[in-house]
Amino acid sequence: MNKDKEEIILLAHGDGGLLTRELVNNIFLRHFDNPLLRPLADAAVLPAQTGRMAFTADAFVVDPVFFPGGDIGKLAVCGTVNDLAVSGARPRHITASFIIEEGFALAALEKIAASMAAACAEAGVTVVAGDTKVVPRGHVDKIFISTAGVGMIPDNLGLGCHRLRPGDAVLVNGSLGNHGLTILSARENLGLEGGLQSDCAPLNGIIRQLLDKCSGIKIMRDLTRGGLATAAKEIAEAGGIDIYLQEALLPVDAAARGGAEMLGLDPLYLANEGKFLAIVDPTEAALVVEILQRHPFGRDARVIGEVRAGKGNVYMETALGGTRIIDYLAGNPLPRIC
Amino acid sequence: MNKDKEEIILLAHGDGGLLTRELVNNIFLRHFDNPLLRPLADAAVLPAQTGRMAFTADAFVVDPVFFPGGDIGKLAVCGTVNDLAVSGARPRHITASFIIEEGFALAALEKIAASMAAACAEAGVTVVAGDTKVVPRGHVDKIFISTAGVGMIPDNLGLGCHRLRPGDAVLVNGSLGNHGLTILSARENLGLEGGLQSDCAPLNGIIRQLLDKCSGIKIMRDLTRGGLATAAKEIAEAGGIDIYLQEALLPVDAAARGGAEMLGLDPLYLANEGKFLAIVDPTEAALVVEILQRHPFGRDARVIGEVRAGKGNVYMETALGGTRIIDYLAGNPLPRIC
Repeated sequence: MNKDKEEIILLAHGDGGLLTRELVNNIFLRHFDNPLLRPLADAAVLPAQTGRMAFTADAFVVDPVFFPGGDIGKLAVCGTVNDLAVSGARPRHITASFIIEEGFALAALEKIAASMAAACAEAGVTVVAGDTKVVPRGHVDKIFISTAGVGMIPDNLGLGCHRLRPGDAVLVNGSLGNHGLTILSARENLGLEGGLQSDCAPLNGIIRQLLDKCSGIKIMRDLTRGGLATAAKEIAEAGGIDIYLQEALLPVDAAARGGAEMLGLDPLYLANEGKFLAIVDPTEAALVVEILQRHPFGRDARVIGEVRAGKGNVYMETALGGTRIIDYLAGNPLPRIC
Repeated sequence: MNKDKEEIILLAHGDGGLLTRELVNNIFLRHFDNPLLRPLADAAVLPAQTGRMAFTADAFVVDPVFFPGGDIGKLAVCGTVNDLAVSGARPRHITASFIIEEGFALAALEKIAASMAAACAEAGVTVVAGDTKVVPRGHVDKIFISTAGVGMIPDNLGLGCHRLRPGDAVLVNGSLGNHGLTILSARENLGLEGGLQSDCAPLNGIIRQLLDKCSGIKIMRDLTRGGLATAAKEIAEAGGIDIYLQEALLPVDAAARGGAEMLGLDPLYLANEGKFLAIVDPTEAALVVEILQRHPFGRDARVIGEVRAGKGNVYMETALGGTRIIDYLAGNPLPRIC
C-alpha cells in the first residue's frame, strides 16, 4: 500500500480487487491468522467433529466505536462468545463481517482488529471467515460489525426452561448497567464519574467452570440489550413460572448507581456485556456463588431472587416490602448501545 | 402492533423490548418459522451430526434494496448458500442479522423477509438465528443484512487448488455481468434495455448434481464481487498454475453485452450472483457441460478456457489471436453492488 492509501478506507478497499486483498492480508489476516482462515476461501472448512452444535449471530452498531472498557471489536467477539456460552456451548469459531464507511481511518480499523484478536485469544476462539464491504460516505456511520459463531455442546448437558422448578435460585455474576451507562456517557459527553467502564468480557471461561463443577445449572442468559429485566421476563414466560427478584440484593456498583440516578435510568433495563443470569437448583446455589466469586468476572456474584410457581411474571420485592411487576421495556429506547 | 406503529421501523423496534419481540414474531418468525429458530434462544442448537463443516459469512449493502431479479434478502440467502455450495458443502442453516434505518417501511421489511424465506425454501436451508438493530435516521442507508451459513461436506469430497493440472477445463454456467449491470442500471436510472435482470439464484442444486455425477470437479468459485477475472486470478495464484481464457467462448448475453458496452465496463469484472466457475478434469468436461445445460441455472454453460503450467497468471486469448493478461481490479470501484 502506498503512503496515501494507508490512511483511510477507500471505496476500492471493498471492490474485491487489489486493495481488498491488501486490506485482508495487512489487517485481518495479520491479526486473526490461523490455519482455518488462511486459505481465504469462500467458506472455512472446519475439521470433522461429532455432536450438537450451537450457532448464533449478532450485529454491532455501537456508537462511539471506542469507549472505556472496550470497543466495537471486543464487543462483537464477546457478544457472540457469550451467546454461545450461555447456551452451554464451548465457543470454537466465529465469522466477522465489516461494513465500513469510506474515509474511516485505517489505524482505527487496525486497532479494532487487534482488539478482536485479543478477545478471541482470551476466549479461545478463532476467526475463520468474514467479509468486508465499503459504502460511500454518509451511507453508514463509521463501522458496523456482524459476527456469527459456532460452538460444541457437551453430550450430557441439557439446559432449558423446562427444568425450572419453584425454589430454584436466580443469580447474577456482578454489577448491572455498567455497559449501557458507559456508552451513553461516552456518546453524550456526560462525564459520568467513579471510573465507570463497560463490563465487556468473554464469559465462556467462568461459565465453563460452573458447568464442569455443578449439575444443577438449569438455564443461563447473557444480560445484553434490555438488561436483566428483559432476560428474566423472557425466561419466566418461556418456563411458565414466576421470578421474584429482591431489590436489596441486586448488585449495582457505585459508578453505575451514580450514573443511573443522574440520568433517571433503571439499571435493571440497561445493557451489560459481561453479565449473565443463571437459574440453578437451590441445593447448589452456594456452590455456584463460591465458584463465580473466585473468578475475576464474578467477584460480585450473588443470589438475587428465586423461581416460584406462576404464569410467566417477574416481580421485584422492594426494600420497603412492596412488590412491583417487571415487564418488557416499552418506550424510551437507547439506540446504538451495542 | 397498533396501526401507527405498523407502518415504519422505530428505534424501539431495536431496543430488545416489546416492539422488538413483536417485530421478530410478526415478521421474522412468521416467514422463517422452523423448529430450530422457534425457541428464539441466544443460540440455535443444531442436531448432532458428524463430519467436516463449512462455515461462511457475508455482509450485504446493495443499493437499491429491490432490483429486477431480486432484492437484498434473496441476495443475502443466495450469496451465503453459494459460498457453501462452491466449497462442496450441502448448505443446511443460515443466520441473518438486520441493521435497519429508523423510518424504513415495515412493508418493505416484510417483502424482504418473504423473499428470503422463498430463497431458503428453494435452497433447502433454514434461518436458525439472527439479530435486529435499528439505528437513527441517517446513520445507515435503509437496510443492511449480514448472513452466515453452515453446511456439511461429504466425507469423500476433496476440492482444492492442489488438484489442478495442465489441461484441466475451465467452465462457467452462463452469462457474465448481469447482476452488476442490473444494480448499476437500477441505481442510476440508466434504463438499460433487453430485459436485463440479476442472475441471483441459489446454486447448491446444480452443484449437487455435478458433484453427485462427476469425480473430476477440482475447484469451484462463485463469481460475485470482482467477477470472473478476480476468481480466476485468485485460483491461478493459489494453485501456482496459469489459466487461459478464450474471449470468443465467454458467455455474455445480449442484454449484458449492450449494457456493458454502453457503460464502458468489462463483464469479466462485473459481479454475478448466480454464476460459478468450475475447473474439471478434461475427460469430464463434456459430461459437466451436459449436466449443467440440463439445469435451468446452467443453460448457457460452456468451457471457456483451460489450465496450463505457469506461475499464477490469467491470460485472455482474443478473437483476433492476441493475448492479454488479466489482473485484479485496480481502480474504478463500483460500490454497493452486493
